Amino acid sequence: MIAPAITLLTDFGTADGYVAEMKGVLTTLAQGIPLLDLTHDVPAQDVAFARLTLARYWRRFPVGTVHVAIVDPGVGTSRAAIAVCSEGRFLVGPDNGVLSPALFALDARVVSLTVDAKASPTFHGRDIFAPAAALLARGASMEMLGEPYIEPVRLRTPQPRRTPDGTLHGEILTIDRFGNAITNLAARDGVAVQVGGHEVRLVRTYGEAAPGELIALVGSSGFVEIAVRDGHAAARVRLSRGQPVELAAMMR
Amino acid sequence: MIAPAITLLTDFGTADGYVAEMKGVLTTLAQGIPLLDLTHDVPAQDVAFARLTLARYWRRFPVGTVHVAIVDPGVGTSRAAIAVCSEGRFLVGPDNGVLSPALFALDARVVSLTVDAKASPTFHGRDIFAPAAALLARGASMEMLGEPYIEPVRLRTPQPRRTPDGTLHGEILTIDRFGNAITNLAARDGVAVQVGGHEVRLVRTYGEAAPGELIALVGSSGFVEIAVRDGHAAARVRLSRGQPVELAAMMR
Amino acid sequence: MIAPAITLLTDFGTADGYVAEMKGVLTTLAQGIPLLDLTHDVPAQDVAFARLTLARYWRRFPVGTVHVAIVDPGVGTSRAAIAVCSEGRFLVGPDNGVLSPALFALDARVVSLTVDAKASPTFHGRDIFAPAAALLARGASMEMLGEPYIEPVRLRTPQPRRTPDGTLHGEILTIDRFGNAITNLAARDGVAVQVGGHEVRLVRTYGEAAPGELIALVGSSGFVEIAVRDGHAAARVRLSRGQPVELAAMMR
Repeated sequence: MIAPAITLLTDFGTADGYVAEMKGVLTTLAQGIPLLDLTHDVPAQDVAFARLTLARYWRRFPVGTVHVAIVDPGVGTSRAAIAVCSEGRFLVGPDNGVLSPALFALDARVVSLTVDAKASPTFHGRDIFAPAAALLARGASMEMLGEPYIEPVRLRTPQPRRTPDGTLHGEILTIDRFGNAITNLAARDGVAVQVGGHEVRLVRTYGEAAPGELIALVGSSGFVEIAVRDGHAAARVRLSRGQPVELAAMMR
Repeated sequence: MIAPAITLLTDFGTADGYVAEMKGVLTTLAQGIPLLDLTHDVPAQDVAFARLTLARYWRRFPVGTVHVAIVDPGVGTSRAAIAVCSEGRFLVGPDNGVLSPALFALDARVVSLTVDAKASPTFHGRDIFAPAAALLARGASMEMLGEPYIEPVRLRTPQPRRTPDGTLHGEILTIDRFGNAITNLAARDGVAVQVGGHEVRLVRTYGEAAPGELIALVGSSGFVEIAVRDGHAAARVRLSRGQPVELAAMMR
Repeated sequence: MIAPAITLLTDFGTADGYVAEMKGVLTTLAQGIPLLDLTHDVPAQDVAFARLTLARYWRRFPVGTVHVAIVDPGVGTSRAAIAVCSEGRFLVGPDNGVLSPALFALDARVVSLTVDAKASPTFHGRDIFAPAAALLARGASMEMLGEPYIEPVRLRTPQPRRTPDGTLHGEILTIDRFGNAITNLAARDGVAVQVGGHEVRLVRTYGEAAPGELIALVGSSGFVEIAVRDGHAAARVRLSRGQPVELAAMMR
């Protein structure tokens, strides 16, 4: 099967030409298969950030899609280079946890990619991952790419814990471009959110908030977000990654 | 008819994965139709900026193109979601004026998109606009997407006014990446531009200016721009959006 | 022959819509040929930067690819607009040296593009280069585009010089997004690098360095780079473009 698309996530930016080199390799080896930029603006070497971004999209693409995801501070060390087949999608990238979202599926299979002696020790994106992605996109089997790999690095989103009074204690996972703080709290039964000394009302839509009001609502990934209608919550009340957030239970 | 392309304009940036999610939906529902990133760097929630950008490009694409344009501070409020057919191109986005350039055409037709109860109230780009764009790109009729919508928000570029001495009084609409200030003045019969206390000579090309000289010339959209040859006009003489600009008539 | 892809490098950013206009022209005139963004984030008007980026990728794409490369501070002056055919790839852009990497090939041919009187004097990307690229991508010959052009501007990477003690004296060509300083030194026989008063050990891979260690290694383009493992070398020891770097010979 020919892949419907090859997608690219990196922390390379685009100006230096590294992504351009990868696209040259991909166009040469997988001509006719659409290349989709997802992002090249992951903060440099921020594997945790990239993992959260990948979690959002990898399963929304059709079966057969090949996702390249490279945030690779360990390039040139002993970290493995891997390919994953999970729920019908393929992923290639370094074995540092960036591909974790696809590794928890029951059918996930992993192989380690052979690192050729001629590969640049600083740029596996061009010399290892792009060629592997092209092969998978053109229908190569996982077995053709490398040996089974047993223990890939799997990073989990931190889980909230519940205290006896029913309160859920979580944290801010990331802050998006709009200043919304995305937490690890699923809001099934909460009524109010505490963050940084602020008590924040939980609403269903921005339409229920006054302009400028600090609110909490369930965002598009199913988790509670702290937001300001028509504003930037993270700047307004100084929110940051890892900061504790509490969700009070409906009846206390 | 299958669309020659689906284009994307947003203020999402790319790092957070929102654009990636939309591309997943579009690749799933409109496989084989090229996706073109136009920009994801519109300043956050800046509808006026996005409208000016859209005005530049929407008609330059072939008939049948589907333009997705999402700058949507009102998501989750009562603002409508719309699709437009105008001069053979299709556009989808929020009803907040961002699609205005296509709404002034005589043949413009508008329908309101049904907002499914399962759609995320914070991310219509993924759950409403991308699916609608995919349907249109695959040949669905406007009628299949929603009910006719009579009064979409239409924002106009501010018009200059002429005083009895013949002077045109306009303003700076936007400042581009190079520091050029783009005005709403058409320069048919002007000779000199006044801005921020500076008298600026009107030239035809950069070649007529000295390096470092502050000049005015007719830019690529047909309006007067304030520029510095080999420099950044907005930084050099402190120009900003909305600032008044005057164009003296040829004979006073 | 139909081109496998048309690639785009500019310093336009994307927000203002200039790239979008070019994509409209290209989609209209070369429908069905993939458009690949390589970068729009070249620093504004930085021809030298763009030249180094282009050098990385132009030959990695398949024969027949059309590369559009526009960093064009001289638009509207007497600088020529050119198209190049070199090692089977086509390139279009201003005659200011940005296309230099392709001009040193033995088989390089150059034609000057006709600048139509109707072309905007500030936006040849849209009115000259995109139409020329579309024609080449659809199989037009160089002769159809313009007259042979004899002396295009060719910029060379500065060459290091060797002193009697065998030391190579080079410089930093650019600093990438990760803070790595890329030099013009090929490291065939060096043992240690001197930069800004620091003596830096030459290693083969990041794996040979301690976290946080300032090192030098041969990067993915074959030249010596100054780097910090898990860090940002340019910020750590204040490196900048043009700064001298010395490579001591193996035996002195």
